[in-house]
Amino acid sequence: METTTAAASSSSSSLTILYNATIVTMDPDNRVFKNGAIVIQQDKIISIGQSPNILAQFSGESLDLQGQILLPGLVNTHVHSSQQLGRGIADDVDLLTWLHHRIWPYESNMTHQDSYLSTLLCGIELIHSGVTCFAEAGGQHVPGMARAVEQLGLRACLTESIMDSGEGLPPSWAVRTTDDLMFGLCFVLSRVQSQKELYDKYNNTADGRIRVWLGIRQIMNSTDRLLLETRDLATELNTGIHMHVAEISYENQVVKDTREVEHGTVTYLEKVDFLKKNLLAAHTVWVNKTEIEFLSRAGVKVSHCPASAMRMLGFAPIREMHNSGICVSLGTDGAPSNNRMSMVDEMYLASLINKGREVFAKGTTDPTALPAETVLKMATINGAKTVLWDDEIGSLEVGKKADLIVVDPHSWSMIPVHDCISCLVYCMRTENVVSVMCNGKWIMKDKKILNVDEAEVISLAKQASNQLLKRAGICIPDRMNVL
Amino acid sequence: METTTAAASSSSSSLTILYNATIVTMDPDNRVFKNGAIVIQQDKIISIGQSPNILAQFSGESLDLQGQILLPGLVNTHVHSSQQLGRGIADDVDLLTWLHHRIWPYESNMTHQDSYLSTLLCGIELIHSGVTCFAEAGGQHVPGMARAVEQLGLRACLTESIMDSGEGLPPSWAVRTTDDLMFGLCFVLSRVQSQKELYDKYNNTADGRIRVWLGIRQIMNSTDRLLLETRDLATELNTGIHMHVAEISYENQVVKDTREVEHGTVTYLEKVDFLKKNLLAAHTVWVNKTEIEFLSRAGVKVSHCPASAMRMLGFAPIREMHNSGICVSLGTDGAPSNNRMSMVDEMYLASLINKGREVFAKGTTDPTALPAETVLKMATINGAKTVLWDDEIGSLEVGKKADLIVVDPHSWSMIPVHDCISCLVYCMRTENVVSVMCNGKWIMKDKKILNVDEAEVISLAKQASNQLLKRAGICIPDRMNVL
Repeated sequence: METTTAAASSSSSSLTILYNATIVTMDPDNRVFKNGAIVIQQDKIISIGQSPNILAQFSGESLDLQGQILLPGLVNTHVHSSQQLGRGIADDVDLLTWLHHRIWPYESNMTHQDSYLSTLLCGIELIHSGVTCFAEAGGQHVPGMARAVEQLGLRACLTESIMDSGEGLPPSWAVRTTDDLMFGLCFVLSRVQSQKELYDKYNNTADGRIRVWLGIRQIMNSTDRLLLETRDLATELNTGIHMHVAEISYENQVVKDTREVEHGTVTYLEKVDFLKKNLLAAHTVWVNKTEIEFLSRAGVKVSHCPASAMRMLGFAPIREMHNSGICVSLGTDGAPSNNRMSMVDEMYLASLINKGREVFAKGTTDPTALPAETVLKMATINGAKTVLWDDEIGSLEVGKKADLIVVDPHSWSMIPVHDCISCLVYCMRTENVVSVMCNGKWIMKDKKILNVDEAEVISLAKQASNQLLKRAGICIPDRMNVL
Repeated sequence: METTTAAASSSSSSLTILYNATIVTMDPDNRVFKNGAIVIQQDKIISIGQSPNILAQFSGESLDLQGQILLPGLVNTHVHSSQQLGRGIADDVDLLTWLHHRIWPYESNMTHQDSYLSTLLCGIELIHSGVTCFAEAGGQHVPGMARAVEQLGLRACLTESIMDSGEGLPPSWAVRTTDDLMFGLCFVLSRVQSQKELYDKYNNTADGRIRVWLGIRQIMNSTDRLLLETRDLATELNTGIHMHVAEISYENQVVKDTREVEHGTVTYLEKVDFLKKNLLAAHTVWVNKTEIEFLSRAGVKVSHCPASAMRMLGFAPIREMHNSGICVSLGTDGAPSNNRMSMVDEMYLASLINKGREVFAKGTTDPTALPAETVLKMATINGAKTVLWDDEIGSLEVGKKADLIVVDPHSWSMIPVHDCISCLVYCMRTENVVSVMCNGKWIMKDKKILNVDEAEVISLAKQASNQLLKRAGICIPDRMNVL
């Protein structure tokens, strides 16, 4: 008996039945139903099984998916939703220019409305790319983000960008850095307090789709006070911490030089007892064997962002982290780092680059490394674990939230489908994602975003981004002979 | 005066005028017209310039492109069009399984009709991805390919897969290998002769859109006789040679062991005077400094295929080859190696991986390596040079063929466009390619393929590929618990 059903009225008018689909459940048994059906009541999955059985057992609003593929909604575990208006402002420049002359001026000049529009535009791209849940990496103006997420119908863990020290910050942020002990302490407490207020106001809002996390931008912009206050507040609130960890080798060098540890960020975080199950460590590129062991033992989750890794950071030891039992998931990073905010592309990239990276260890690539089923796991159930939400999302199982996507494999980009799982990783493109449901509601249907006017958002975002760049004094030079 | 015009009637009913476009010409002056127009007469570009000037000077069928971007058609310089039906048959397997148990059984069981359908399906994907010209890497049944290319309206350099020795070949190809000197000589001559016949029959057909090249699969499947006969025939016919070169480190080892040279394939090809201007060397991953110098001096063209490089081969020294003056272009490789046959994605990958690869030389990635304008050049004018056709294609210039694509940058995947050139490399996806013209004729308009029935091709390709796998005895194991 392959059908699983929760106790529920078997003939309620509020049921939605999706049938005649290849259902890739990503459940603990790795079940794939070749001709499957799924029953949704309000925001939850109440049954899943073979189409004929389900159709005999339930009645309701039914939709014939005509052999399309049903997948859990993808979980993007590292995305700067407030950077979407800055796509293309920092392409092909060195890291210092990227941060000091493009990103920080951009971010420090954002208004609430910019943040709202940026998250709307980003959310549209995420939905088109099959995402139902994302973890904000730490951005500007959580209220603006929350408004956009509520409206789009997405699920998200929202986080403010938090720093309290460091060099090269824009004037409007300079107050955040201080060597004065008392002022510094007050400042840290106010930064932590402001996040608690955001938590109180927005956590568990939008029908439970929004959660509020705490942020640490990165270790070079954090005092120990900030680290430890954040750690303790996260424990108190039972929420997560999102932090960029060991992004570049320079970061490790700075940590070694200034914090007296042998290797780098992870070693230091271990030393101050910061590594916990609720830490989402983004990138985590420059880690050694001992540090991988630290992360694994503590149950830290890692967000691997292949595109920005290749472009800016370096190749993280993903196979090694995966083998050590660390939960590794996938993220797009922000639009000025990537610039495609597509989890569909990140799956493709994750597979390619981690096969290729082996060449440096072994002398040849390893085409068997990180097979498609592993990558698919990273984008779904591991994503859910990373955002501490796997009790409700990340797989298609009875009792979980109905967060799912419909993929059309019948087009030129995926035909012929000889391997139903690998084609999702190697062939699927955003254009194959046709419909997206979050929390039991369609938020995209037949490629149409349902809850916001896409054209209007695009138009407003264009205007806002031009004005923002002007305010920030960012000027992008022409590359060619523009006439 | 920025408008360039060829001598032509300025008011002919046969003119097509595309205006109000950002035209990225890729001409020697790197001109970009922000509000540009282009005039096409029959298969040629006869004028290009600012929209107001062009509209004042010419009349004809005009199309307002509403601020969309016009680019030269992309040139895919390494694609196995006959492998399209085998997409997904060899994912996540080691190289030996890939070649001996999947690709060779597949290829050796193809019929003419399979080759025709495979190239049709591949061509549809190429057109959707903005390609107007491709170089077949060496496949099965050139007549089938030619029929498909003629019908699709594409431009191509077609090549047969040619081997005359080597291990692990399927029984039906075994006759191709021999140690008998006389028989071997006759066999080589017949293989070379059969290519000459293909050349005589198909070169310069389909309104000049089809050219026939000579093929060498790779050095481990070629005797010296085959290499030299091929080189000489190519000179005689004034055509090109397409060959996989230095793909894997094992290849170099075999060449060192069996052909008595110090390094590998390129060193050997230099020794036997095989390196010429008309050689298209695909992949060219495992080359040292001396070999790069050999390639550069000889004017050999290199096709870089980032996806299959990452997945199977290793990271080619693209920056080094580019700096040494070698013409490097881009290719998708075949569907069982990639599996996205998208030049749009290859541009994105080429930029990412070549920034990332620097980490192994310098300790950090170099986000300034291979900037967008260089990658765009690789995909257009360098592609044209690689296929020895840059007198007619690869840039939008007066007198050249009207091979061009229309890109819509106004959608969620590209907004906001702060950097018009980099957005084509980092943001553009296949879904942004809306229309494609080859040889002065639209072959895709508003995402609809015009010359073949896409749905019918898909349906026939599905059937044919299933039957082919059955004949070849290829069985793809399930990855998950399929019910």
